[in-house]
Amino acid sequence: MISDLEQIFSTNIKGMKKSAIRELLKLTQRPEIISFAGGLPAPESFPIDQLKDITNEVLDQDGIAALQYGATEGVTELRQILVDRYNKEGLNIELKNLVITTSSQQGLDLVAKIFVNPGDKVICGLPSYLGGLGAFNSYGAELVGIKFDDKGMRADLLDEKLAELKTQGIKPKFIYIIPDFQNPAGITMPESRRLEIIEVAKKYDILIVEDSPYREVRFEGKPQKTIFELDNSGQVILLGTFSKIFVPGFRIGWVVANEKIVDKFVVAKQSTDLCTPTMNQKIAYKYIEKGYFDANLKTIIEQYHEKRDNMLSAFREFMPEGVTWTEPEGGLFLFLTLPQGMDAEDLFKKAIENDVAFVLGSVFHCDGSGKNTMRINFSYMSKERTTEGVKRLAKAIKEML
Amino acid sequence: MISDLEQIFSTNIKGMKKSAIRELLKLTQRPEIISFAGGLPAPESFPIDQLKDITNEVLDQDGIAALQYGATEGVTELRQILVDRYNKEGLNIELKNLVITTSSQQGLDLVAKIFVNPGDKVICGLPSYLGGLGAFNSYGAELVGIKFDDKGMRADLLDEKLAELKTQGIKPKFIYIIPDFQNPAGITMPESRRLEIIEVAKKYDILIVEDSPYREVRFEGKPQKTIFELDNSGQVILLGTFSKIFVPGFRIGWVVANEKIVDKFVVAKQSTDLCTPTMNQKIAYKYIEKGYFDANLKTIIEQYHEKRDNMLSAFREFMPEGVTWTEPEGGLFLFLTLPQGMDAEDLFKKAIENDVAFVLGSVFHCDGSGKNTMRINFSYMSKERTTEGVKRLAKAIKEML
Repeated sequence: MISDLEQIFSTNIKGMKKSAIRELLKLTQRPEIISFAGGLPAPESFPIDQLKDITNEVLDQDGIAALQYGATEGVTELRQILVDRYNKEGLNIELKNLVITTSSQQGLDLVAKIFVNPGDKVICGLPSYLGGLGAFNSYGAELVGIKFDDKGMRADLLDEKLAELKTQGIKPKFIYIIPDFQNPAGITMPESRRLEIIEVAKKYDILIVEDSPYREVRFEGKPQKTIFELDNSGQVILLGTFSKIFVPGFRIGWVVANEKIVDKFVVAKQSTDLCTPTMNQKIAYKYIEKGYFDANLKTIIEQYHEKRDNMLSAFREFMPEGVTWTEPEGGLFLFLTLPQGMDAEDLFKKAIENDVAFVLGSVFHCDGSGKNTMRINFSYMSKERTTEGVKRLAKAIKEML
Repeated sequence: MISDLEQIFSTNIKGMKKSAIRELLKLTQRPEIISFAGGLPAPESFPIDQLKDITNEVLDQDGIAALQYGATEGVTELRQILVDRYNKEGLNIELKNLVITTSSQQGLDLVAKIFVNPGDKVICGLPSYLGGLGAFNSYGAELVGIKFDDKGMRADLLDEKLAELKTQGIKPKFIYIIPDFQNPAGITMPESRRLEIIEVAKKYDILIVEDSPYREVRFEGKPQKTIFELDNSGQVILLGTFSKIFVPGFRIGWVVANEKIVDKFVVAKQSTDLCTPTMNQKIAYKYIEKGYFDANLKTIIEQYHEKRDNMLSAFREFMPEGVTWTEPEGGLFLFLTLPQGMDAEDLFKKAIENDVAFVLGSVFHCDGSGKNTMRINFSYMSKERTTEGVKRLAKAIKEML
């Protein structure tokens, strides 16, 4: 072994830590623990039998192509069907505007690879998806957090911050937004706020990265147009994924953007993994094409809707005064705020003693704030376990009050 | 669209070009073209029927886990069976020494992410696998090329170069070696040279990255010990992949290294794609466990052996005086050298007119040398097409002489 291993690691990797969530998940895998910590889809939503049939069909009809290297851009029929779906929704994109990625996480990694030099600023919400922050950090980005209200990132504070940075000659590389059923906050940005954010982005000539893994999982209320569609000028990079609306184990995501930006994604992806698994893409295409996707998505929405309702009623029944939470119209997460001054980290230890787990809200805050907040997942656990878990959590909170 | 898009790209992405090979492959996809350009495995080697059975079995018995998120380190049973196979061969590793990657290309990307700061030197062979060079470049590495003889990278020149760099206070981050059936040169490093390279690496306290995608595809001669095994001190990072010995479309590779290094791979991979597709890993495990892997590998070896022999006899029959080529004991490629002063780029245009394609050797040379060399793939085309292709190539060369 070489003598100075710790010294020769890159500056960026030295700054990276193992994901708090993924490490936490390991700790919370004792079977007796009721875990609201992960972001796992409900296993009962996985279309196992359909996938057996489709895989046989793909291997029978198109096996050689399915097992061979594929184009870096992705399998054309899958890209085309995704393009068609977006256009049906109101977007106006072509094949050249969409590239398949090996999970949406790769989309986040590549966004950073394409735009971030060490020390560059990136704007993110307080809070924001940890995996996004981690990817940006891994290229040496310096994160600038903008506070939320009940409509998501505040456009006025964003404007103020960008003005302040501008006086210092600093132009952030992009604004990172998860507009629908935000992870972790569970908040959906209404159209008015989306338009305000676009206006500020245009004023300061800055890209928006719209991370949209949950958008299709809407239980109620009116679907919001994507920021990409509302902008319609090429200023927005839209990231999508099958992880929450089909299966995560296939690791298929995609990026929709201006052709010049997609071109850079392709270049960056070539040196990263050459191409996304071909067979998985071909199966995903057939799954959509046969109509299974839309049918199964309905089931997922119904399941998660029930699970959310069940969790909310358990919250109302068991949570002590002073604890508040978001009531998301879709997605997988809600966000819980403890009374001011209470520390979710202390609660975490007590919760684990009580065999219930969650994720500290502070890990989603790039400035370390949010000490009294927690992210709660409602998609994974059964309704019975959820109710019991909320009881245990409420008990732990009461003990601390 | 923002006004200064071209300016805001990262320094690293500005330095990256689309892979010459992958772009070339697009140009050479006219059906009439006989292409020796790609690095594609033979489609007739793909075990389609076995994969249908195994996929059904995995989805039946373990469907939920196969479709869910998995551990960043990879599926344990797959890691374990790979560890066992290496140990049977003579290595002495544990589960903690092996992490699954989404293709060996991801292994190369992560190596660079973990070690390379912009401006760091990386040692590579003249020539070396283009995808490796691309991955290192994408993190701003400066490549230092070391010439080959018929045993691969010259240890004496490596020693000289490292001594020279040391006087300048420069210590490269690692030495990149493809010891078996090297891509593109088709050369295998004998044990004596491996030991010399290890000695030099130890003398200058530098890591070795051993990229080993072809090692199992040996037609004749004695299998060489991996550099990892010969070193046995943790100074070597070994990259493996299923792409050439099973199927490339699954995108499964792995990294074997000292535990502290594996730990960094896991951290880096978390922000890159969270985990490699779970189902693909579970299928690969069963494919090995059922004995299909070893049986099918034998068939691949026989097929490629025949294809190589066929190509070599066509070369002997048709190539004009002054053209030389390597005669690899395995793998997918051989390397052809034109008479001094002849330019493979001129030949390429003529070859395409004659409906035959190859890859310019110069793209594998980080210093731009190798103008009169070319990489020839013999695994993909049928024997008949290969013979015809060699005829066409020989004709083009004769026309230029």
